[in-house]
Amino acid sequence: MSLLSFLDYASVAIFALTGALVASRAQLDIVGFAFIACLTAVGGGTLRDVMLDRNPLFWMGNPNYILIACAAALLIFFTAHLVESRYRWLLWLDSFALAVAVPAGVGAAIQMHQPALIVVLMGVVTGCMGGLMRDVVVGEVPLVLRQGELYVSAAFAGALAGVILSTLIAPGPALLACAGVTWAMRAGSLLFGWRLPVYKARPPKN
Amino acid sequence: MSLLSFLDYASVAIFALTGALVASRAQLDIVGFAFIACLTAVGGGTLRDVMLDRNPLFWMGNPNYILIACAAALLIFFTAHLVESRYRWLLWLDSFALAVAVPAGVGAAIQMHQPALIVVLMGVVTGCMGGLMRDVVVGEVPLVLRQGELYVSAAFAGALAGVILSTLIAPGPALLACAGVTWAMRAGSLLFGWRLPVYKARPPKN
Amino acid sequence: MSLLSFLDYASVAIFALTGALVASRAQLDIVGFAFIACLTAVGGGTLRDVMLDRNPLFWMGNPNYILIACAAALLIFFTAHLVESRYRWLLWLDSFALAVAVPAGVGAAIQMHQPALIVVLMGVVTGCMGGLMRDVVVGEVPLVLRQGELYVSAAFAGALAGVILSTLIAPGPALLACAGVTWAMRAGSLLFGWRLPVYKARPPKN
Repeated sequence: MSLLSFLDYASVAIFALTGALVASRAQLDIVGFAFIACLTAVGGGTLRDVMLDRNPLFWMGNPNYILIACAAALLIFFTAHLVESRYRWLLWLDSFALAVAVPAGVGAAIQMHQPALIVVLMGVVTGCMGGLMRDVVVGEVPLVLRQGELYVSAAFAGALAGVILSTLIAPGPALLACAGVTWAMRAGSLLFGWRLPVYKARPPKN
Repeated sequence: MSLLSFLDYASVAIFALTGALVASRAQLDIVGFAFIACLTAVGGGTLRDVMLDRNPLFWMGNPNYILIACAAALLIFFTAHLVESRYRWLLWLDSFALAVAVPAGVGAAIQMHQPALIVVLMGVVTGCMGGLMRDVVVGEVPLVLRQGELYVSAAFAGALAGVILSTLIAPGPALLACAGVTWAMRAGSLLFGWRLPVYKARPPKN
Repeated sequence: MSLLSFLDYASVAIFALTGALVASRAQLDIVGFAFIACLTAVGGGTLRDVMLDRNPLFWMGNPNYILIACAAALLIFFTAHLVESRYRWLLWLDSFALAVAVPAGVGAAIQMHQPALIVVLMGVVTGCMGGLMRDVVVGEVPLVLRQGELYVSAAFAGALAGVILSTLIAPGPALLACAGVTWAMRAGSLLFGWRLPVYKARPPKN
């Protein structure tokens, strides 16, 4: 299996787990779990493929992606009650999903010889949009927009690192570095509160 | 008119009625009614066509779909105040829309010789995503996610029945059976509380 | 630069400003500003291009669109605290963005020789959907749906004027008239409360 397929599979599997965890918080039935899991798992990559006009969509030519997402939904349906804090699991699984989805998007765009700016954007789209759809559909505040956390910034920095390194070293290590940078920044934000300055309105003058 | 066109038209018309009912609950003007009606009516099928790379989109080659959706919006604008409970009408119209949209998606995918898994998914997407867009845009809890009801499950079971039967009997009756199964399950859920077990977190240990 | 490119650029720049203003209300960091700015700026046009199967998407062949949107995000990040009422700026900038995005959509569809109904719809989609995505993602009530205001109606009237005039006069003036009608109606609604009758449920009989 190529590194790119591996990243695609890993991103589908882990995003599906996060989707199913969100479904567990909304107390859906097993088909509802599978629905949100699939939406989250293939949402970002589908948007990337539609934007790049890739045909067929990555999960259409190969049933394994959907089957993996459904297996992840099943797993969570029967085990989520065993964990102490589902929200902490959600945050951390989501950070891993982000860290593999960004290089999956970057790699797919590089393979299609897109210019550097588009490659970076496809990394961000693939990484962030599946989770965004998941959160919007169930009506939660998107993780992407949680104030004072690195999320889009982590995806952006990772994608940028991937693009720059891919001109210097082999594509494989460049994609691994992309994953590493993305995850390190996201994890640093969760663990140590790393953040960029956020916009603060000046208090009203009087 | 082929059965498939009939299902497409019926799904557009009925989903448009549900969109207009939602617009009446949000007290929009007549153009707002038409906007939400069109979004709901063609949303699921548009996503299906984009995913399957069908060109042009089903409503682009033929103005009747949009005109029907606008007529439905007009009808509701002038009559919705006559009914006792708009929400009950919404629920039941939505169940009929689901029951015709699922076989419309299944039929379109079969016609393009997609594998069985993709056919089932296209049935679910066509059935569920228009209503989901409607509910997300106006900020209501999506019907798709109402706890303890069969919705995605009904679409999934209907699509599965349609795919299996289409290998055994003529496509027409298979699509009708798909519609029947979908509606029976959704209606059974609304009338008799049919449901699948939902996820229940174990209560905290201490 | 052709009028159509100018409209595209203006719509991207102004919608990006509105996206960044919304990001400032959500207190995001600079990358979050750029994310929401880009989503708002290219959202409507991307949907139009996907529906019309235009390839590549308008912003993919030309990096300037994304760079302009990021510059707008940067500008707002450092200046938004200077204005008295960010919400009023949002409303008015959004009205200008609508007024240039509608003719951009109309012009693109006319250039592809689409029938009149599709041209009108593409004007409405290009004008309304970017702002709709912006508002849905951050969880605000979409401007599109604000009760008792002309918004979709303004886009619809402008697009209709553009289509009709384009059969009578040169395309350039027709697009300018389209922009003028759209903005006049939207501004009239904001300034003078112009509105269409909204749906009012009859009070319950007893």
